[in-house]
Formats: sequence, structure tokens, C-alpha cells
Amino acid sequence: MLREACGIAGVWNVERAYNILHDILLGLQHRGQESAGVVVGNFETVKGMGLVEEVIKSERYIPGDRGIGHVRYSTVGSSAQRNIQPIIAQTRKGMMGVAHNGTLPDADYWKNWLMEMGHIFLTETDSELFLHLISSSPFDKAQDAVVWTLQQIRCAYSLILYHKDFIAIARDGFGIRPLFWGKFESGFVIASEDAALRVIGAEEIREVPPGTVVFFEKDREPYPVTFSNLSKRVCSFEYIYFARPDSTFDGLSIHKARFNMGVKLFEETKIEGDIVIPVLDSGISGALGFSYASGIPIDLGLMRNRYLGRSFIMPSKRSETVRRKLLPIPEVVSGKRVIVIDDSIVRGTTMNVIVRMLRESGAKEVYVAIHSPPVRFSCFYGIDTARRSELAASSQSVEDLRKAVGADRLVYLSIDGLREALEGRNACFACFEGRYPHEEGSRISLR
Amino acid sequence: MLREACGIAGVWNVERAYNILHDILLGLQHRGQESAGVVVGNFETVKGMGLVEEVIKSERYIPGDRGIGHVRYSTVGSSAQRNIQPIIAQTRKGMMGVAHNGTLPDADYWKNWLMEMGHIFLTETDSELFLHLISSSPFDKAQDAVVWTLQQIRCAYSLILYHKDFIAIARDGFGIRPLFWGKFESGFVIASEDAALRVIGAEEIREVPPGTVVFFEKDREPYPVTFSNLSKRVCSFEYIYFARPDSTFDGLSIHKARFNMGVKLFEETKIEGDIVIPVLDSGISGALGFSYASGIPIDLGLMRNRYLGRSFIMPSKRSETVRRKLLPIPEVVSGKRVIVIDDSIVRGTTMNVIVRMLRESGAKEVYVAIHSPPVRFSCFYGIDTARRSELAASSQSVEDLRKAVGADRLVYLSIDGLREALEGRNACFACFEGRYPHEEGSRISLR
Amino acid sequence: MLREACGIAGVWNVERAYNILHDILLGLQHRGQESAGVVVGNFETVKGMGLVEEVIKSERYIPGDRGIGHVRYSTVGSSAQRNIQPIIAQTRKGMMGVAHNGTLPDADYWKNWLMEMGHIFLTETDSELFLHLISSSPFDKAQDAVVWTLQQIRCAYSLILYHKDFIAIARDGFGIRPLFWGKFESGFVIASEDAALRVIGAEEIREVPPGTVVFFEKDREPYPVTFSNLSKRVCSFEYIYFARPDSTFDGLSIHKARFNMGVKLFEETKIEGDIVIPVLDSGISGALGFSYASGIPIDLGLMRNRYLGRSFIMPSKRSETVRRKLLPIPEVVSGKRVIVIDDSIVRGTTMNVIVRMLRESGAKEVYVAIHSPPVRFSCFYGIDTARRSELAASSQSVEDLRKAVGADRLVYLSIDGLREALEGRNACFACFEGRYPHEEGSRISLR
Amino acid sequence: MLREACGIAGVWNVERAYNILHDILLGLQHRGQESAGVVVGNFETVKGMGLVEEVIKSERYIPGDRGIGHVRYSTVGSSAQRNIQPIIAQTRKGMMGVAHNGTLPDADYWKNWLMEMGHIFLTETDSELFLHLISSSPFDKAQDAVVWTLQQIRCAYSLILYHKDFIAIARDGFGIRPLFWGKFESGFVIASEDAALRVIGAEEIREVPPGTVVFFEKDREPYPVTFSNLSKRVCSFEYIYFARPDSTFDGLSIHKARFNMGVKLFEETKIEGDIVIPVLDSGISGALGFSYASGIPIDLGLMRNRYLGRSFIMPSKRSETVRRKLLPIPEVVSGKRVIVIDDSIVRGTTMNVIVRMLRESGAKEVYVAIHSPPVRFSCFYGIDTARRSELAASSQSVEDLRKAVGADRLVYLSIDGLREALEGRNACFACFEGRYPHEEGSRISLR
Repeated sequence: MLREACGIAGVWNVERAYNILHDILLGLQHRGQESAGVVVGNFETVKGMGLVEEVIKSERYIPGDRGIGHVRYSTVGSSAQRNIQPIIAQTRKGMMGVAHNGTLPDADYWKNWLMEMGHIFLTETDSELFLHLISSSPFDKAQDAVVWTLQQIRCAYSLILYHKDFIAIARDGFGIRPLFWGKFESGFVIASEDAALRVIGAEEIREVPPGTVVFFEKDREPYPVTFSNLSKRVCSFEYIYFARPDSTFDGLSIHKARFNMGVKLFEETKIEGDIVIPVLDSGISGALGFSYASGIPIDLGLMRNRYLGRSFIMPSKRSETVRRKLLPIPEVVSGKRVIVIDDSIVRGTTMNVIVRMLRESGAKEVYVAIHSPPVRFSCFYGIDTARRSELAASSQSVEDLRKAVGADRLVYLSIDGLREALEGRNACFACFEGRYPHEEGSRISLR
Repeated sequence: MLREACGIAGVWNVERAYNILHDILLGLQHRGQESAGVVVGNFETVKGMGLVEEVIKSERYIPGDRGIGHVRYSTVGSSAQRNIQPIIAQTRKGMMGVAHNGTLPDADYWKNWLMEMGHIFLTETDSELFLHLISSSPFDKAQDAVVWTLQQIRCAYSLILYHKDFIAIARDGFGIRPLFWGKFESGFVIASEDAALRVIGAEEIREVPPGTVVFFEKDREPYPVTFSNLSKRVCSFEYIYFARPDSTFDGLSIHKARFNMGVKLFEETKIEGDIVIPVLDSGISGALGFSYASGIPIDLGLMRNRYLGRSFIMPSKRSETVRRKLLPIPEVVSGKRVIVIDDSIVRGTTMNVIVRMLRESGAKEVYVAIHSPPVRFSCFYGIDTARRSELAASSQSVEDLRKAVGADRLVYLSIDGLREALEGRNACFACFEGRYPHEEGSRISLR
Repeated sequence: MLREACGIAGVWNVERAYNILHDILLGLQHRGQESAGVVVGNFETVKGMGLVEEVIKSERYIPGDRGIGHVRYSTVGSSAQRNIQPIIAQTRKGMMGVAHNGTLPDADYWKNWLMEMGHIFLTETDSELFLHLISSSPFDKAQDAVVWTLQQIRCAYSLILYHKDFIAIARDGFGIRPLFWGKFESGFVIASEDAALRVIGAEEIREVPPGTVVFFEKDREPYPVTFSNLSKRVCSFEYIYFARPDSTFDGLSIHKARFNMGVKLFEETKIEGDIVIPVLDSGISGALGFSYASGIPIDLGLMRNRYLGRSFIMPSKRSETVRRKLLPIPEVVSGKRVIVIDDSIVRGTTMNVIVRMLRESGAKEVYVAIHSPPVRFSCFYGIDTARRSELAASSQSVEDLRKAVGADRLVYLSIDGLREALEGRNACFACFEGRYPHEEGSRISLR
Repeated sequence: MLREACGIAGVWNVERAYNILHDILLGLQHRGQESAGVVVGNFETVKGMGLVEEVIKSERYIPGDRGIGHVRYSTVGSSAQRNIQPIIAQTRKGMMGVAHNGTLPDADYWKNWLMEMGHIFLTETDSELFLHLISSSPFDKAQDAVVWTLQQIRCAYSLILYHKDFIAIARDGFGIRPLFWGKFESGFVIASEDAALRVIGAEEIREVPPGTVVFFEKDREPYPVTFSNLSKRVCSFEYIYFARPDSTFDGLSIHKARFNMGVKLFEETKIEGDIVIPVLDSGISGALGFSYASGIPIDLGLMRNRYLGRSFIMPSKRSETVRRKLLPIPEVVSGKRVIVIDDSIVRGTTMNVIVRMLRESGAKEVYVAIHSPPVRFSCFYGIDTARRSELAASSQSVEDLRKAVGADRLVYLSIDGLREALEGRNACFACFEGRYPHEEGSRISLR
């Protein structure tokens, strides 16, 4: 599986901000399960390795009517404790905190520049850079320094900044990562995905526009400042895999997008079979679309053990690990031509075991259908596409991969098919095509 | 949700029994999430409140090539630490341990009899009774004492007994609860469900027959002893809700049974609608059957947050709690006549919120279809059907319940429909009909 | 060091009994550091491995105005979780709990008798026996059953029994272990040592007489029942080592008794030296007496690291472990004839390192003076005198032990000297003389 | 009690540096009990709130043959997790770590200067400053940058710096805080106090001279660089209270110094009494000196509960808290004129309770004798002398304080007496006299 970097959350002017951040972060837990943290009120900080429920204890009470929060799966920086976000620091513009989703391809450039002025870096994150630049900004007023900083760093970020006088939320000019805010009780709530806001009952939920920062200040309506006018490039992998199916992004339902991909996948491939089997949970929306378009019935041929912990004790080959997570139901697949649907293939080892288990359970033929194009290039914007060499599709043809996986057929959705499934969104396809938004155009090259 | 009592596990003559028990118990975690425990080798005990992964630490090594294990959701006895199973005790037949799934309607009778002999009870479980009776048995040999004890206690139990010379596994004469064993490496493995054995790669998996105890002893093939010849009455709720979909019971696939129930449910009700929506995860197999039989497309209209912890912080009405667990996808349900499928209704409060949320998301009409009959009577055999007064269906008509739930229609599967879905199994329908197997027949009444 | 079994505590009719038990047990922590537990109110139980502060959390609130508690260092039974006291059980006389200090030399006799009636034992403690006998007693009334039981079991016990209608506290007929009670706020408090009651501000503190049980019941003054008239034999090792110096036992201050031992030790040995050095903390009271009697100045030649944890990481010989705990101050001992005072010697290995370190620090001569007689016999009454073979003094002469320890002189207090130091108390000297109180007299022999 | 800031530790070129740091830090635990941390090998970091044994787990293995460590009681900066030392950062001279004992009166000056260059501060410690200045130093070579930095910051610090190429250890020019190093196995070990090195068996232990940094580098003997020639001013409170009695500082045994103070205290005051009672553990060395000089016998009149946790549960006045920690032995003090010896008085509330408890236990008269002068001024060098207003001696005369404490007499050692007890050391008496070393002389004023 590809792994998403982070989820971010914020609360402005609502009593018991700590508790609300806990609830929002629970709704973003799928975006990062390695560490969690919040900064609340007068910079009270609660952070730690582990799930939201382990770190942001429900029984605690931290005073404060505002705060920011973060869940993390490390993409840059090891998983060490000092890298847990939000990060807070004393800056020239006062005490500040940051919670950041995304990675910065230009990070080294900025770090070197700052180190020449003697700056030191106490974390290994890209995110610390925002605070250094704000502190170093030629503008005295903190809000101006924030805007100046966002103008310097092209991408990729969805960001929440915390200051005693304001909260600022921003998305880079391409709008690569999602960010939403809405009304809640006496104030406002902020989250990477709208589902995490709907879950707590927020209203008037809207998306932060690309290249825009929205400031929340005392005795004033939230106001936006536009700092960039690049063309939108929302991350296509948010649609394919990362975001919750019950979220939306750029106005399109994630579940709907995946359903569309399943529909397109059938239309492009016209695979005939007896039964459609989703790989739970990632393949289910696509499988429903495929079944709908093809008329081939969908059934549960692979059950998922939801209580599976992080590790099995027994000395086991990877194949055995898969078996504990996904177990075939022989009655469903026996004697059938099975079409297995998943969102993507990373290394191919898991799919190889699935195919083998289905055959052992009596499947007559096994077709693997992936509702996205092959991932051939690394992502520099916050998705852990693993090192290039580990991407199954980067080093071999689809036919070679089919053999490695052991399937009778292996099909992918085309890039055009994906584009249609996204209903015309101008999305980032860098991991499929290798063309990176931040390298385009006439801007000053930083390297 | 109705809550299952327990899952039990055993290992005989396989190296690293502790580790294997961990793996089997993970596969039974759905049967009990409140406490876990194992007894291994020379009665080394590891027990605690919490999930398998929290209690049976993977990094530990406990020597021993045999052992028994247990996961528990309390039905009898509070959740206190002293009630965690397996229970071990010094008895007149030597040191013994027990892991038990089921509850004993005659427990009080036996406790009173033993207390008249001065016995004391250190746990609040029914399960401790087995050790008292074995110790008090007129037979000196431990194996004979075990058989004598099983003859005394009618039901309900699937049971694993641990002794320095043997492991004994048994099911009561009605076969109410499931129990399986299979070959694994140099010895044997035992579990409440076959899926938990398939998951680790066990072979030649078979069911313990009702009224039978199987002894595992050194230098000898496992041998069965029959101690009862009552007619089989397997628990129908194992099929409806408790067991894993990828398990089987009495030769019938659990998923298949639920799929059948969905099919029968459509055949009986002929409900017309635009879309079939399962309540995840309990309703999915039935919804697939319903969709298959009706031709009405199935889709995900309610997403489930899988990272949800035990509690939300915010002061919340129950309705809000449901929203955090199950969130509608408006694009899927808007403007449609939605058929919501679930396995059962306990209090009705959850379903009421689901119906309301679907209407808020634009559903034109909401039909609730339950793929089992109304639960009207308490279970005395190990299922937490809650107190009678809390059973929605026990105190009101289906029409009243429909109003309470707020649905446009509410339909249940008939008892005959359920019987057909079970493909003729002689199952226990006590919670639907109020006729209890242990009160039937010509046996001596104990009260 | 010899290790004491246990400390016990009780509260009757005082609000927030849980909290008061916590405070009393803290004052008894020196009597057992392996596990702690309380039973409060309606048999609410909090137990665990570890120190009082780790188990009986201060921030918790457990309702109830009565309860019993226990701290434990295992003497009988491994340190397994199931052996943690207090033990509670459903008995024929109702729910009961027990907290017990002492061991029962006749335990096996009683266990065998009970197992013939089919009883089973869920703990490995002697203490569980009290509940079995009470349950099996021919008397129906719980209080009568308690008195009958105490008449059966000769020694050694200081005991607290918990019942919904009463608390009963008792000492065996020899009065081997201490037990005190006093007034506190609206009710009464109970503890193994009076210092633990003085610490919380209890008043009218008095000792439970040997062979007596005191019942605390509703709407009634506490009343004693005498059940035995054996001659008193208080444990001399409570005076020598176990009890807190600020406690008393049988009317004699523990510190005073040790000071007396130091005085007698000088009077018997007339050792000349330049400086008296206590082994902290066990030897300090005796060293003060020795210095006082001899006029030889006392000084700190060995400092103790009070933050020392349970284990050092570095691979280390035992000698190194001692060094981390006790470090010489060269300025104090250099060039001097040093008299090292301690309460006792168990294996002799620690003292050997002390002598060596003092010589390395420049001591001219090292004399070791022990303010008790050599321990030559095992204790069956609740003191961990280790297995006989490990008692340095049991297998070798004092001269051989002196050589093993490496001292220039090694002297012990005589048994008569000890008797005088105890100011005429009739104490148990079984570990010095091998004559055991429970084997004396004309009573029926149980074996 | 006054509370010491920190203890620091280091290991160079010895296998299993993590384990050795654990052992050294255990020997420094008295210098800081709030948090602990180590940086080992390739900047592997283990840090946390709590005692050494809770944070630096013995069972872990962290590879590396060098490292630094820290224990902390917060003086500057709240006790938040982000302030735990050692601190590591990416600097212009490479990755670096710092462990620091002391506080910097000029910290704000430097922070402001650096923030004008946009620097940000992720901790609230003074210690982070060292890394900023090293990174900002005009010298490229890391070792040169270290020396330059030490020249900028006058005091107070004992310091260990960690770099992939070296460890550097330094004391400020006044030598206010202690720092020692010695040989150990294949390399070297470093600690705030020599006792922590003697404890593990280090050899050739020597003190880092004031104004000197010693570099440990590969394939080279450790070499010193002198960077300051201020006159020595070792902290007199290390002698009076902070350091272990078995340590030395500036060549004088801590225990000896305290013993001297007790001797001088008698010589100055000539108090007559019947018995000398130390307040454990702080007053014992002084009490021994006082008893020795006066011939008045010393005895234990106040016992200390060594198992006392951090908090009592019961709602209690402060007086009750003291009683749980220190309990009088009536037999010792009854009817006597008692001389209570302690090292210092901070607020006076504890001593007030002690005096009252002694009177309740029968003391005829109570004299309080303090073996140091009244603390009248705040410390800026790493000792928590609390806010000025809380210093009992800063706001009132000794006679007023005597009344507040309730003693029949209250005497202090004179400053001259202290000077003599330190055998002529040129010590810092700022907290007694208000003359601060860092404000003396002809150096450039920073403010």
C-alpha cells in the first residue's frame, strides 16, 4: 500500500478545543497512525507515538478554546519523537506552532540558506522550515510574514499555523493536498477532509482554495488572502486510495470517483468473469462500480480480519502474513472465474498471495483488475510511494508483473480513463507520468 | 449489537505454543475484546484486560509445547480481573486449567451443592464450576473425572481443559457453540472457529461432535469419548451475527448462510427500492444476497470509521456517537429509495439515527430490512441478549418498532425463512421462540 | 537481607476508605514491595504487581467507608498475579476477603483434608485456607465460623477478614506477627505496625493481644474474642530487622531495641577501634548504640545510593552491584580501625565486598560487628530466611565466616544479649535456636 | 529544599555506551528526578519524563560506543517534554547534541541577538543557545566554533557536547558547577560528580579545570583547551546540600565539608543540649560533626519513610505531609533538650512541623541549628532558590524566623564559618551575600 503522510486539524473559538481536536483527529486517523499531537490554548502540548486514542487521552482536560492537531505517517524524517507535529517554537514574530500535510521538494535549498545564517534544526521535518522562514521574514507583522513565507515555498502543503493572535490555514498554489473548514458552535473547525468535519456535525463546510491562506482572528470574520495563482493540480491518489470514501475533494465524492474508476475499468477492459471480488477495504468502491457496469455479481470472496495487530508472532513468510489479514471463502470462489479488484499494486507480493489463495480455494481463473494506472514515478508531495526500485510497475512491464503476481490476466485503468473518472478535474498525475508540477513553468529555478 | 461471550484456543505438541495461541486468538478476537489469556507449558499464565495484542505480547517467549487460551466478552461475572480466563487451580486430580465458551443455566444449582461442602468460589464465572466438579468427582483418574463432569452439566459449553497429562476439548450434547481442531506441524491446534485455524495454515480441520470430548495425550492419537446423545441444536445467532463470515458451522459457510438469509428476505418481502445499503460490517453478507436476489444494485451509502476508539470526548447524545461510526455518502443515497440491510436490531436507537442521517443526506424513502427474526427472548447459552426489557422486539410490535426507528418500512425474516437459509440445520431458535433446549425432554429436572 | 512477608491494613467506618488504605499501606511498604492490593466497599478490588504508588493510584476514587489492604513479598507461592492479596471469594458464609501476614506450617495438612472434599485452590498462598475453613465450618454464623477457624490454625498469622457485616482482625496465639488498631475520624484503622497509624494521625493506638480476634460491626463498639491461650512468642526479627525503627512491638520501641543491641554488643565484645560505621540503613540504630556505649565516634563511611533501581545494565559481578549501592568515603575511613555494624548476615557476599571496599579506601583494620546472633535455622512463620543451605551461619563456624567475609574480626551478639536487649520479652528465637513454638506442648499433633 | 538543576554524563569509546550512561546517570539521580535522556552512537535518542530507571530501560540495547546523558530538575523552562535534554540539532557544523548543567544569566541577550537573524527556539532551555552559537560561529571547524562559543558565554555551565567527530566537555571560567572524567575500560567516562564514576569502577578520575574544554577525538589522547582565566568560584551549595556526600568538589570531600560545617556550627554557637537529631538525609553529615565537636550524643529522633511516593491521597494540610515523611521516635526525644540539625531552611514550613512534632513527642526544648548561612538572594547559576519572596531568610530576621518555626533557639552558621569549613576554597557565596561573580570585573557589560 502507498502511505499517506498526514492529517491536520484546527479549532478556533470553540470551548473545549482539546476535546474537539481529539474528535476531528479520530476522523483523520486513516491519514497517519504513527504519531498524534495537539497544541491547545496557551501552547499546551500533548504529543506522542501511537494512535489518537493512545495519545490524546479522552479523560484529560486541557483548557483553551483554540488549537491545532496532527496525525502522522512519516514520509520525511524518521519516526523519532522529536519529529512529532505540531511543532512549536519561539520566533521573532512570537510563539508559533505548525501542523503540516505534504512534503517540500525545495526543502534542502531553504535549509542550506538558513544554516548559512547559523540556524539550527531540531526536527528532521520539512515542516519546521515554515517557522524559520516566518521568523526570518522581512515583514514585522506576523500575518505579513506568513503570507511572505507561503509565497516562497511552492509546494506541497496544506498547513495550519498557530499564533497567540490568529490561526492561519493555507494550501499551496497547486492545491495538491485537501483542506476544509466549517462552522461549529461558536466558532470554526478545520480538517484535511470534510468527512472529519461532518462527523462532528460542522456546518457550511467549504474547501480552502489553492494558493490561499485564511486567517482566523479575534472579533473578525475569517478572511482569505490569495498569494499564488498557479493552475490547480489536486492529488489523484487522494481519490484512488488515501482519502476516506465519504469525503469529497475539489467537489467530487471520493467514493463516487472510485466507483467511476471501476466503471471505466470495465468499459476499457470488458473482462468477462463469474464474480467480482474486492480486496477489502481499498478495492470495494471500485469493485462496486465494476460490478454495476458489467452486471457481474459482486461477492465477498476475501474476508478481512479487522482485529489484526501489527505483528504476528510466528516465524512467517510474508505470504502467511497476508493469509491472516485476508482469508478466502471457498464457497464463494470455488469453480468460478474470479475478478479481483484493488486500487493499486505496490510491490506485488500481497497480490501474489491473494491469487494463490484464491486458486487453492478452487477459483477456476483469477483476473486482477486495478482501478488506477501503474505507479511508475516517485511522489515528492507527501505520498510514500516507497523507493523507486520497489515500485512493481516502475521496473517491469504489465505482462511481467502479471507473471509475478500469478494471475491469468492483469489489467490497469488507463490515465485517460482515470481522468474521465475524475470528471475532468485537473489532477496531479506525476506518479504515473513523471511530470512534476513544481518543475513546470517560467518561475525562477531554485537549484 | 448482541455480544458473544468468548473464543477459546488450544495447542498440543507444537513448539512455541505461546506464539501459536497468540495467532489463533487474534483470529478469534471478534468473539471477545474485553480480556485475553493463555496458560502454557508448566501452567505459566499470561492474562489481562484488553485486546490480544495488548495482553499476549508478541515479543515475549514463554516456553512450552502446549497450552490453552481465551478471549472474553463478559456475559456472567463483571469484567473484573479475577474473572479472566483461562482459570487454573490445584484440584484433587492435579493442577488443571479451563477455557470455556458458553453459559450454564444450571450454574446456581451446582454452586449451592458445592458450597454445602464448604467449597469457595474465587471467580464469578460459571467456568470455575468445571474444576470444582472434576475435583469432587467420585472417579480418581482425571480423564474419568472429566467425562463424569461433562455428563453432569447439560449445556452450554465448548470447553478446553488443561492437565499436565492431557488436553481435553468438549462440546455439550446440543452442540450449541462451535469447536474445531486440526493438524498443525508436529501436533494439533484447537479453536472456536475453523477460520482461526485456516488462518495459521492448519490442515485436516474438523468439528468436535456434540456430546463428545476429545483427549490429546502423549504418544497416542487423539481419541474421542461420547458422553451424551441429545439432538443437535447449533446456535442460530452464530450464523446470523457472531461468527466470522469466513468460518463454517455444522458444515455450512457463515457467509453463505447470511447470503441465503438476504435472498430469503427479498423472496419473502419483495421490497422494491433503488439501492441496497448494508450496515457495515454486520449487514454486508445479507445485503449481497438481497441485491443478488432482487437485482437492485448494492452500494456503500454508509461508511464506517475503522479507527474509532472506545469513546468520544465531546459531550454527546448517542445519536452523535453513531454519526462518528457510520457516516452517509450523500451522492449515493440522494433522491433514492434506500433499502438498509442489517443482521438484527437490539435497542433500535442506532437504527433510528441511521434512518435520520439517510434522510438528511437526501434519501427519498428508507426501508429497513433485517435478515433475521425479531429477538424476543433472552439467551441462557452464552449470548448477551441484554436484559429482556431492552430487547426492542420483545416489548413492542414490528409496527411500533418501525415508528420508533422512523423507517418507511421495517421488515424481518421469518423463522421459517431463517430455517431454510440454514439449509435444514437443526438450530437453536430459543431467542426467537422462547423454547429452550435444556428444558426439554424427560431428564431429571434440577430445580 | 532476610525478607519479610507482608504488611496488612484495614479501615472501618471512615469515608474514603480507599484513600486511607493507600496512605496506611505506604507506611507499610518496607514489609513488602512486590505487590499491593485493596478490597473496598462492596468488594471493589484493586490489585497489581509493584509498589503501592504504582498499584493503588492516588487519582482514583473507589467508593466505600471500609476496606482491607495488603503489601507482599512472596514467601510461599510464586509472585504470580493470582497470588496477590487480599483474596476474595464467595463462601458459604457470604462473600469474604482476607489479608494475611505470616505463613502456616500446617498448610499442607489442611489442604489435603479439604481436597478430599473436592475443594480446589486458585491461589498458591497459605492465606486462601482461611476462607476454605470458614466456608467449611460447622457453625452457620460467619463470626462463629471465623472463631472456629482461628482455633484450628495454630500459627503464624496476623490477619484481617472482610465480610459485608464485619471486619475481623486477629493474631495467632503466640502473637508472632504484630497487629495494631486505633481510632481515626469517625471509625477505626488497622495496620501491621503502629508507625503506619501514627503517620496518618490515628489516636488511641493499641496492639491486638495474641490469641484474640477483634470484631468491628455496625452500631457496636469493637469487641474482642479470645480463642487461644498459648504463651506469647513475638518474632525477634521484627526487632532486629523488619519493623520500622519508629514502630513499637509488645510495648518496646524498635529503634530502642536495636540501640540496646548495639550497647550489648559492645559490652559483650569490648572491641576497640577508631570509628564506628553503620551499614545503611539496617545497621544505623545498632551503630548508634555501639558508639554510645563505647565512646567510639560514629561516622558515615559508607554512603547509600537511594535512587538505585532494581537492576544495573552492565554485566556485573555481584561485587559491583554492592559498590553501586554502598560507596565508601575514603576521607572517613582512611588509616583507621573501622568497626562496621549491621543487623545480620545472610549469605556473606555483600559484607565481603564492603570489607574489601573499605580496605581499598585505606581502612587499616576492618572489624565486623553484628547486633544479632547467627541465623542457623529456617523460619516457618513468615520470614524468608532463604533455604537452609544459603544461610552463611548455618553451615560454618563464625571463624570460617570471618575468613569468607575477609574481616579482621567478626563478632555476633549472643542470644542472651539479644534477650536482654529486648528487655525481657518472651520472643521467638527459632531461627537462632531451632526450637519451634508450634511443635511444643501437649496439643494433638497434626502429622 | 533547594533543588539542583541537572546532572550530566558522557561515554567515549567504550562498548555499550547506552548501558554505561544508564549506570552513571543512576549515580547522578539526586541531581534531577524529573526527566532523563541519552543520545548514543549515531544520534539515537532515548528521552522521557521520570526517573532514570523508568526512561533509560535496562532491557534495551542501543548500539554505539559513545554518547551523552542528562538528568534534570527544571529551573528554567517548564517541565514540558520538549525541554528534556540532551538536545540534538542539525547545525552548520554538522549534527550536534548538548547536555548542560547550570543556567545562563545572559540567556535573554543572546536569544534576542539570534532572533534578529530569524533564529527560532524549539525548547525553553538556556542550553539550546550553545547549539545556535556554535552554528552561527565565524569559525568553520566545529572544534573552533565550540571554543569561540564558550568564550562568549560567561557562566554558569558544566557542559557536554556531542558531534560525530568528538565529544567536548567544558566548565565555565568560574568553575561554578562540578565536572569530572576518568578512564574506563577502552575509553573514558564523564560525570557531574566523581562518585558516579567511582561507582562504576572508573580510574584516574580528575576534575575538568574551570575555563577549560577537553576534547575527546578518535585516535588521539583527550586534549584540553583553556578559553578563560577568571578566578575560581565553586558553588558553595554543592557542598552544603546538592552533591552526594561521597563525592568531592575542588579536592574537598562533600561529607567532610558538611562535617566541618557541623563542627564550626558548634564552635560558633556553643549550644548545650541532651541530644543531637539530624533531619534525614540532608542534615546527617553536619549532625555528626556537631555531635563530634560538642560531645553531645547523636541519635535518630526523626525517622524517614523511604518508600514515600510523590503524593498522599488524603486531603491534608502540609503539616500532615511532613508527618508521613518524618516521624519522631518518642523514646528518643522525650524529656530531652533536642538539637535539630539541618543544612538549610527554605520556606520554614517543614521545620515548623518538625518542631511541633518533637514537642508532641515529649521534647523539653527544641533548638534548630542550620549548618549554612541564611539564603537571602536568588541564584542565577542553576540552583532553584525559588522566588525571592519565598526565601524565609530574605524577608525576615533570624529572630522572626525562629518565631515562625516555633523553636526555642534558631542558629545559623556564619559566612566566615562556612568559608573555614570549605578549608579556604574560593567559593560562590552569591545566595548569601548578593554579590554575583558574572557582574564583577572589567568585562564588557552585555546589558
